[in-house]
Amino acid sequence: MAAYTPPLRDLDFILHEVLNVQQTPVPGYDELDREFTGAILEEAGKIARDVLAPLNRVGDTQGCHLEDGTVRTPEGFKAAYDLVADGGWIGLDLDPDYGGQGMPHLLNTAVGTMHAAANMALNMYWGLSHGAYNAIAAAGSDEQKAKWLPKIVTGEWSGTMNLTEPHCGTDLGLLRTRAEPQADGSYRITGQKIFISAGEHDLTDNIIHLVLAKIPGGPEGVKGISLFIVPKFLVNDDGSLGDRNALSCGKIEEKMGIHGNSTCVMNYDGATGYLVGTAHKGLRAMFVMMNEARLAVGVQGLAQADAASQMAVDYARDRLQGRAVTGTENPSGPADPLIVHPDVRRMLMDQKSFVEGGRAFVLWAASLLDAHARNDDAAADGLVSLLTPVVKGFLTDKGFESAVQAQQVFGGHGYIEETGISQFVRDARIAMIYEGANGIQALDLVGRKLAQDGGKHVMAFFDLIRNFIRENGDNADLKADFLDPLKSASKDLQAAAMYFMQNGMKNPNAALAGSTDFLHLFGHVCLGYMWAQMGKAALAGSDDLHKTKLATGRYYMARQLPATRMHLARIESGAECVMALPVEAF
Amino acid sequence: MAAYTPPLRDLDFILHEVLNVQQTPVPGYDELDREFTGAILEEAGKIARDVLAPLNRVGDTQGCHLEDGTVRTPEGFKAAYDLVADGGWIGLDLDPDYGGQGMPHLLNTAVGTMHAAANMALNMYWGLSHGAYNAIAAAGSDEQKAKWLPKIVTGEWSGTMNLTEPHCGTDLGLLRTRAEPQADGSYRITGQKIFISAGEHDLTDNIIHLVLAKIPGGPEGVKGISLFIVPKFLVNDDGSLGDRNALSCGKIEEKMGIHGNSTCVMNYDGATGYLVGTAHKGLRAMFVMMNEARLAVGVQGLAQADAASQMAVDYARDRLQGRAVTGTENPSGPADPLIVHPDVRRMLMDQKSFVEGGRAFVLWAASLLDAHARNDDAAADGLVSLLTPVVKGFLTDKGFESAVQAQQVFGGHGYIEETGISQFVRDARIAMIYEGANGIQALDLVGRKLAQDGGKHVMAFFDLIRNFIRENGDNADLKADFLDPLKSASKDLQAAAMYFMQNGMKNPNAALAGSTDFLHLFGHVCLGYMWAQMGKAALAGSDDLHKTKLATGRYYMARQLPATRMHLARIESGAECVMALPVEAF
Repeated sequence: MAAYTPPLRDLDFILHEVLNVQQTPVPGYDELDREFTGAILEEAGKIARDVLAPLNRVGDTQGCHLEDGTVRTPEGFKAAYDLVADGGWIGLDLDPDYGGQGMPHLLNTAVGTMHAAANMALNMYWGLSHGAYNAIAAAGSDEQKAKWLPKIVTGEWSGTMNLTEPHCGTDLGLLRTRAEPQADGSYRITGQKIFISAGEHDLTDNIIHLVLAKIPGGPEGVKGISLFIVPKFLVNDDGSLGDRNALSCGKIEEKMGIHGNSTCVMNYDGATGYLVGTAHKGLRAMFVMMNEARLAVGVQGLAQADAASQMAVDYARDRLQGRAVTGTENPSGPADPLIVHPDVRRMLMDQKSFVEGGRAFVLWAASLLDAHARNDDAAADGLVSLLTPVVKGFLTDKGFESAVQAQQVFGGHGYIEETGISQFVRDARIAMIYEGANGIQALDLVGRKLAQDGGKHVMAFFDLIRNFIRENGDNADLKADFLDPLKSASKDLQAAAMYFMQNGMKNPNAALAGSTDFLHLFGHVCLGYMWAQMGKAALAGSDDLHKTKLATGRYYMARQLPATRMHLARIESGAECVMALPVEAF
Repeated sequence: MAAYTPPLRDLDFILHEVLNVQQTPVPGYDELDREFTGAILEEAGKIARDVLAPLNRVGDTQGCHLEDGTVRTPEGFKAAYDLVADGGWIGLDLDPDYGGQGMPHLLNTAVGTMHAAANMALNMYWGLSHGAYNAIAAAGSDEQKAKWLPKIVTGEWSGTMNLTEPHCGTDLGLLRTRAEPQADGSYRITGQKIFISAGEHDLTDNIIHLVLAKIPGGPEGVKGISLFIVPKFLVNDDGSLGDRNALSCGKIEEKMGIHGNSTCVMNYDGATGYLVGTAHKGLRAMFVMMNEARLAVGVQGLAQADAASQMAVDYARDRLQGRAVTGTENPSGPADPLIVHPDVRRMLMDQKSFVEGGRAFVLWAASLLDAHARNDDAAADGLVSLLTPVVKGFLTDKGFESAVQAQQVFGGHGYIEETGISQFVRDARIAMIYEGANGIQALDLVGRKLAQDGGKHVMAFFDLIRNFIRENGDNADLKADFLDPLKSASKDLQAAAMYFMQNGMKNPNAALAGSTDFLHLFGHVCLGYMWAQMGKAALAGSDDLHKTKLATGRYYMARQLPATRMHLARIESGAECVMALPVEAF
């Protein structure tokens, strides 16, 4: 069974030596001293290691089963869920007015990196509750908040997001689920939704579905979409559960991975629903929950890479095969461990430098959310809005690649399900797809975010990097290994942005044909920036972690950042060769 | 269900307009006129499309089952196998002296690209027979050849390769299976082998295991390994089946993919075996079959990418989602097909340009095998020996990536097993691992093949490219789009080889730390060279295929070849950052 070791020392380093949270002027951050964050993360880490990780393979092998309309989750999931709920973890960063603990989003994200690593499928159940909470909190009435939020916070109830229909995923304008107004102010919801994660299960007393539907007579397309609360059980005025609502799980999908999470076809047959916010303005509310969900999915990509690479390191240390080319390193054994071989080492360094850089990146993004939420910092909001598709797209693409690489370390044993590493590859795969497939993230980045507010946010991003390089220019140790490569990579990013500006107006395809390369280019610059900051912090320290950080950072700068030049070349080759073929020539 | 369309026109183009087989001075190639190859490939294509492809998902969902020591293959596999065997396809390129059809290896490889695409798991059963045949043909006595080969050729019997043991895969020097000499000249084989593809099944009357074992008292390590024929049933002098041999399948593995192929734990309990070739020289004979097997695995990587991309193209044409940014293309429908979107188009072009370039590459490699086998062409032998790890490693790494990309085109539907695309991803994954994991291919390339015969073969490769560029330098259409990028990419390859020469002697890690990047750099140059040749042939033609080829080739040169610069930068960063961390720092 795969053991999971919580990266507590690394989280501490990022929070207190890189992000320097206590010195950051965000309300609540002053309380985040080392002892406090250490205590919280240690507890969260224990749950990851002792409760969630041992159920990861159980979830994969048992899967979920639909019986008489009810989904049975894998053995042990209910007990683990209750333990997490009882510990108050679900509401860690939620509003104290509704029973939450009011901690910064940053801390919750740090917890999430461990919980999503230990058991992604199980972690998703309360991850989705978080999303539902956010939508109601952002767009619901006070009455709705008071009625629905407290029990989501305690975990007694869970939540879901219902967007996709059989004929539409990305293109929500096509959706057909309809909501007919009733005399009492409620709506009758009718239609079919698919790919509903945690749509039905046996972990909670009630499931609060957030459903996108169209009110007849409203505007066409995405401008006529409204958002509804549609509970599995109706709720009486005293908060007790009433009748079963007219909705049901018609089927659970057989998937490549995340078998422990039930992916449901949900049928709404005139179910009672309650409008959230304004009629026809549902998409805006849904985007509130989607943006945070996208960051959470980025965390999943990173987390799966983390867990997989821990397994790969253990295997590479234990498995004896071949001799080091520079001389035997394990003379008393029949062979040397795999980890002595340079190509194995390369794979482990790729993984390590990605996971640690990505971890810093998601925590930085989370701190920007806090700066916006707690300080009303519009610049932070603009920046995190720009970075969200990068966090989601880059960390999930690379997280999957990293898990595949971890599997490769196992040789033939990696292909056997019993070994357990295949699950991380299969589970990580979905993160590239859901919450907007990564091509959609790239489109969002290039088509929307880049030019948002006159390009102000991307300019602010470049300023951050430029200032960091300038302010640390006299740090000779940092300069050659970190600042110079970062400068070169960020120049590539600027050149790409410039190419889009010069060509995208005449021909939108010129930008869109390079969108995925741009997202990856951007991702590398972000991780390069994180590593430059971590390099600086590491140079200021002197213990083993600092030495390891320096070596790992140097690896990222030397071995990963050169990808930016390739992405730029692809972008600058333009759209012509991408779009040249007529459809029938494929 | 996934339909498979045999790429007959493309195979014809490569054979007759690019490789110009009939003008190639290899005995037997003069008979390969367009009509003849067209007829053979059309028949082979029909089998792929009508017989093998319909069983692909059946194999994945049913898998193999071990019952009372016998493995039951999926429904329909036996009938399909018999049809292939009865058609003489198993012996297509095998020696007529043993019942084969004596066709060039090239033709068999062209057939293999389709059969491995349509049903990789089923195709493997006779693929392994081919390997066993080659080992016996290369190292067996005349008597052994006469006894074992004819029924392998007809498909009445099948073959396997038994190398791996629980504690050793790559490092065969550690193997423990022992072979004790008996008075009658035979050996008693005792030990356990794992990961034996097609080790036990119900498709044939007998299974001929080729087993590596150590004769007690022989040299230590790889110098004391011998090769044995160990049949499931002993064979009487008249060719009839005798007693069951003392070997059995102890278990079949649950794997990530290729469920239709039985991957067996094989237990040899004093089984009767027959020495092939010289005692203690078994590894050399095994390498004969491994080299051809490695090319065949490269074909699998390419083939899975082919089949997956066909599915992705169909989906991208049919699925309506969103509108083209440059203006509605399907005004009568609710949305435009996915294929109008530049990022979807990019994914399809990546796949198409890889698959067609890779197809040319494997056929070129196969033609070099023929030149060696039929013309005793030592230069061709040296070249194909150099290229073998590139074919295997590059085409399987990229083939998997390509299948993942095909899956991405499906969005959420790609993650659902019912759609069928996930199988191609899961099946393609093994090709990066077996027959020597791709890191071993990179080691073979950099540590062995590059410097083989004083570097003669890599010099010959560079000469080929240099001459091609020079000879076609006045072809202005070819120059800018094809020759210039090829020249630049091959310069990167030369610079990398030079780096290894200058640094590898002092520090072998300097070369090995860059070995995988070198393999990929080499692969891109090979596909670039293929595309330059195809570009030239396409410029000489005028039909739709030629126009499509030009556009696809331009895409590869503009969008894929820029990777060479990145790989070179990684290589030139050296081993220091790769090996810097002490083992305990991971």
